[in-house]
Amino acid sequence: MKKNSVKGTSDFLPSEMIIRDYLSSTILSVYQANGFERIATPMLEDIENLDNSDGGENLSLIFKIMKRGDKLKNSLERGEFNELADMGLRYDLTLPLVRYYAAHRNELNSPFKVIQIGEVFRAERPQKGRMRQFMQCDIDVINAEGINVEIELLDICAKTLLAIGISNFKFRINDRRILNSMLENIGFPKESLPGVCISFDKLDKIGVDGVTAELLEKSMPKSAVDRLAAIIGEGPLTPTDVKKYCDNPQYANNMERIIDSMNIIAEGRFETIFDMSLVRGQGYYTGSVFEVESLDFGSSIGGGGRYDNMVGKFLGETVPAVGISIGFERIASILLERGIKVPGVRDKYAVVYEENDIIKAIKKADELRADYDVALFEKPAKLGKLFAKLEAQGFKGCHVLGAEKPEKEF
Amino acid sequence: MKKNSVKGTSDFLPSEMIIRDYLSSTILSVYQANGFERIATPMLEDIENLDNSDGGENLSLIFKIMKRGDKLKNSLERGEFNELADMGLRYDLTLPLVRYYAAHRNELNSPFKVIQIGEVFRAERPQKGRMRQFMQCDIDVINAEGINVEIELLDICAKTLLAIGISNFKFRINDRRILNSMLENIGFPKESLPGVCISFDKLDKIGVDGVTAELLEKSMPKSAVDRLAAIIGEGPLTPTDVKKYCDNPQYANNMERIIDSMNIIAEGRFETIFDMSLVRGQGYYTGSVFEVESLDFGSSIGGGGRYDNMVGKFLGETVPAVGISIGFERIASILLERGIKVPGVRDKYAVVYEENDIIKAIKKADELRADYDVALFEKPAKLGKLFAKLEAQGFKGCHVLGAEKPEKEF
Repeated sequence: MKKNSVKGTSDFLPSEMIIRDYLSSTILSVYQANGFERIATPMLEDIENLDNSDGGENLSLIFKIMKRGDKLKNSLERGEFNELADMGLRYDLTLPLVRYYAAHRNELNSPFKVIQIGEVFRAERPQKGRMRQFMQCDIDVINAEGINVEIELLDICAKTLLAIGISNFKFRINDRRILNSMLENIGFPKESLPGVCISFDKLDKIGVDGVTAELLEKSMPKSAVDRLAAIIGEGPLTPTDVKKYCDNPQYANNMERIIDSMNIIAEGRFETIFDMSLVRGQGYYTGSVFEVESLDFGSSIGGGGRYDNMVGKFLGETVPAVGISIGFERIASILLERGIKVPGVRDKYAVVYEENDIIKAIKKADELRADYDVALFEKPAKLGKLFAKLEAQGFKGCHVLGAEKPEKEF
Repeated sequence: MKKNSVKGTSDFLPSEMIIRDYLSSTILSVYQANGFERIATPMLEDIENLDNSDGGENLSLIFKIMKRGDKLKNSLERGEFNELADMGLRYDLTLPLVRYYAAHRNELNSPFKVIQIGEVFRAERPQKGRMRQFMQCDIDVINAEGINVEIELLDICAKTLLAIGISNFKFRINDRRILNSMLENIGFPKESLPGVCISFDKLDKIGVDGVTAELLEKSMPKSAVDRLAAIIGEGPLTPTDVKKYCDNPQYANNMERIIDSMNIIAEGRFETIFDMSLVRGQGYYTGSVFEVESLDFGSSIGGGGRYDNMVGKFLGETVPAVGISIGFERIASILLERGIKVPGVRDKYAVVYEENDIIKAIKKADELRADYDVALFEKPAKLGKLFAKLEAQGFKGCHVLGAEKPEKEF
């Protein structure tokens, strides 16, 4: 039997669970205070739904559940090795949400302002910061038009981070329609845009030279690559700067309005900037995309975007949708490193009893539970050793049934 | 694309999630008040661990995760169709707990009093009350000897049910060692005992005649079957009654002590009885077994038992262990049917704003959030229709930015 949790997953110790529970309940309560409602979907989804979900690179990371019984036998006998699975573990909460909305929309409020907090699964190659099972904490708004929804989601995300004690962060935002329009207008063929975006998204990591080299490797027109390099070379661009490259100035105007609004709302507590190189991996985004960057930790602690075409896959009609997700695991590890004192955790007390005194012990412990979390311990041969252990575990004190001095404080 | 959740699983609506969140947080807080600590393990476990976990009938219900990449390709090419999976979804929280304890025991308190709340998965044939994904809420004590642990767990289980508002219940308890000793002494061959227990466990459902018929079908000795029928025929047996059939009276004495203690602790609020026919399906139980029966709903709402040999599978040494699990899904559906008012849920208020007033709207909503959960709505063409919708959704009122009479109460 193997003692360790399976590759790429974690067991959580009691001290870690205190922080994780605090984190998820804080996130939930801020989301709820902002008028959002929680739902839940199963971890399992139909394999065809997952395969057709436009999840980009995540589609290759789906854990597949094998068929069972005769269905498995038949597929094996027929050599249909691509049809051995009938379900998969969800790789994010967006596909399940869209399926859920399609199934239940007559029972839901409109616009539907929805919270999802739950585990997702990806068959990542195990590496630091990449887990095969991790929590996501999403809010989405389905069936509301206009950019005020984006502002609302970014505001709630900021409030949540501030409530958790994460203050030094920045929103980077973009609109895929701006990026695509600009790339097409400077000479990249329309059908090459997804591949160009993948390279462009790496600007942070590999710089202008890296991006241009990669694009030339992909046989992109040299003139287009040169123009792109020149545009990037101008330094950080504002939405106004990029308007001249775009067919529809509306998307740049919207970015401007979102950024200006967020910077007023922030009152200096955090910044929102335009980042034309922001793409995000998922194929399903159709408009705005966001990323939340922790400046203390130099990593992404959230992200999201608009996915107006996803509901249509189920219902055959376009329903606008936009969401943002807080990076639970990254934040949990930040809080753990900081060693925060979680509010609301009660002090611990022990009741020690002789073997035949269990009933009295339960009674005494129940009295003490008005003020403490109380654990029972059968009296060991060496009481002093137990006291030392309790003190080491952070107990405030101990009541020893039948002793002359029953209270022992640590 | 398929709109419904996969067979045997549920999507949960906002109204259901309010109850589920209340239920899990109440269970967690009672468990914690009793000095237990929460841990978490992954949903995924190594397939060999699961296959060798003595889970009885649950072993045939494991959802298997397919290998990926070259490993899958190699297994398929070699025709090793029994080795296509490397992991499975956990079917309960006991195997993961035992693995966890083996991996981390040097970091854990001893005795280890542990809480687990999380989803488990079983490939059940879909039917009412049998879900393929469901929540379990377990407490276990690892590494403590003696029957006071059983009393403590039953007491905490009762406290939890009472805290939730479930009052009309009964504990049925047994000890597998009593049952096995009795069956062997009246003439059943030792190697047939597991099969005999499976039939005997059905006494509730098929009666004495059904049990005897089934045992004779299994070619059990007629004399043993007749003696068993005679013993059952005496009516409900006490631990004292069964002592004469057992080699070791200690186990019957222990049952008596547990029952007497629980009936004192209960102060008439619930009953604990001996039920010699109680077996429970899991193969890993070695001693006491429990079941919690709701008398209002005629169904099991919890259960557990002692599994002293499980840790040994990982560590090679015997470590005593006992646990009890509350049936979350059954209780959630009971609370939902009752239509309980969940305590602590804040009233809802709306802020309605013109398209260009999002910043003011956020400011106003933040003020109101001292007292309410507040949702934002962009002003629709027909305000009266929005008011009707908000009232139907249970909103207490609405603030319309810029209106002459901004407050509208429902």
